[in-house]
Amino acid sequence: MEIKEMLYEGKAKKVYRTDNPDFYWVQYKDDATAFNGLKKGTITGKGSLNNRISAYFFSLLAKHGIDSHFVEEKSDTEMVVKALQIILVEVVVRNIAAGSLAKRLGMEEGTPLPATVVEYYYKSDELGDPLINDDHIQVLKLATPEQMARIKTTALKVNDILRSHLAERDIELIDFKLEFGLHKGELLLGDEISPDTCRFWDKNTNEKLDKDRFRRDLGNVEEAYREVYRRLTQ
Amino acid sequence: MEIKEMLYEGKAKKVYRTDNPDFYWVQYKDDATAFNGLKKGTITGKGSLNNRISAYFFSLLAKHGIDSHFVEEKSDTEMVVKALQIILVEVVVRNIAAGSLAKRLGMEEGTPLPATVVEYYYKSDELGDPLINDDHIQVLKLATPEQMARIKTTALKVNDILRSHLAERDIELIDFKLEFGLHKGELLLGDEISPDTCRFWDKNTNEKLDKDRFRRDLGNVEEAYREVYRRLTQ
Ligand SMILES: Nc1ncnc2c1ncn2[C@@H]1O[C@H](COP(=O)(O)OP(=O)(O)O)[C@@H](O)[C@H]1O
Ligand SMILES: Nc1ncnc2c1ncn2[C@@H]1O[C@H](COP(=O)(O)OP(=O)(O)O)[C@@H](O)[C@H]1O
Ligand SMILES: [Mg+2]
Ligand SMILES: [Mg+2]
Repeated sequence: MEIKEMLYEGKAKKVYRTDNPDFYWVQYKDDATAFNGLKKGTITGKGSLNNRISAYFFSLLAKHGIDSHFVEEKSDTEMVVKALQIILVEVVVRNIAAGSLAKRLGMEEGTPLPATVVEYYYKSDELGDPLINDDHIQVLKLATPEQMARIKTTALKVNDILRSHLAERDIELIDFKLEFGLHKGELLLGDEISPDTCRFWDKNTNEKLDKDRFRRDLGNVEEAYREVYRRLTQ
Repeated sequence: MEIKEMLYEGKAKKVYRTDNPDFYWVQYKDDATAFNGLKKGTITGKGSLNNRISAYFFSLLAKHGIDSHFVEEKSDTEMVVKALQIILVEVVVRNIAAGSLAKRLGMEEGTPLPATVVEYYYKSDELGDPLINDDHIQVLKLATPEQMARIKTTALKVNDILRSHLAERDIELIDFKLEFGLHKGELLLGDEISPDTCRFWDKNTNEKLDKDRFRRDLGNVEEAYREVYRRLTQ
């Protein structure tokens, strides 16, 4: 497969066409942004770590019967994926209160949630990714009710799989964001699963091993991403 | 029945105990607030109009089999209601894009929604009444899933009844907010249904006949509330 012209440059990845219209070539960048692009920076080595961590998680999920866009790694920072028509709903799954949920509900960060919370956000930089509900999704025609039902079931399955896999590696899965898309009519998990899109806390020390180190200027950002990769692959 | 000491003074009403623990005495005020209390003012005659309009709507809904807390009017500005344990979820039903929905979804005000939208807001002045979903309601233990199912069904029925009743009076029901509560284990519609809690537009001119006249400094606020009452009772 050959890489062709760039289709889209996002905040964390570049997406390229290939010589096969069914596949895209994704390049993970070291660029980091937060607060809807207000904070910008670079995390050396992030592109390579997020590419390899995402490949690892997509492979793990495939073994558990969850289909994703992931096809193969092409280099340290590159993977080939199935071309998706991305559904503009960011699906957030939460086990422990943190970030915007803690703020929204007035809960202390770190409080275990009595039940898993699934949230939908409208993927729109312009509108600041607002929280939406199933009725909003229908009004915006972002996905059908049947697609949303499958998305919710899949997101909860992904949570179960990742949570227990990470727990064995002394990592608590606090929350994470998924994107889904359609490939030839088939609903697939897309985008990335990485410390950019998940909250990982060390099970014993509660040390943050994710993008919150960048958002909150906690230092040792690259080291945290590297530690996640180390625990997954050692 | 006798009015006893005040239990709670809200932004638009005062709630008093009575000599019967099953009933409260509600006094509607002329005070108006907007933007979570940031804007304050007085609308002369509002208390009397909202009391009478709410009584009118609760009576109308009772005829259609929707149970509410409303018992009887006591004066121009007062009604007796069944004492509720209020469920801290504000239920918003929307037919036409306006206000925060138009902003959230990037839609123009006045755009008809392809399907009725039901939204839940956490009734918390401190948190600014944030939008929440069914999972948040479970986490906060605001209501059971069964109660929420009944609340949603009832809210949609209220929409059907009010919408067609108002349409006959040349008023378009854009959206409205309901509160529910428990009285001896029974789920009842509570609070008020008035130009403070609904958006009413004249069907022919789109003139606003509701609290947006106060929020947006459009003038003739009292006249608009009076016009709604006039169209309902003439
Ligand atoms: N398989 C895929 N096919 C098409 N687009 C994809 C695929 N996987 C992810 N994308 C999209 O690629 C874009 C680039 O990723 P990213 O840099 O994270 O962008 P963003 O700034 O939108 O978050 C995102 O809009 C994402 O939705
Ligand atoms: N039947 C009822 N029993 C007990 N409380 C009620 C009943 N109906 C409404 N309330 C509550 O009375 C309070 C007073 O109303 P309001 O002035 O609108 O207050 P707020 O400032 O909270 O909006 C509200 O908190 C409302 O939820
Ligand atoms: Mg992204
Ligand atoms: Mg009120």
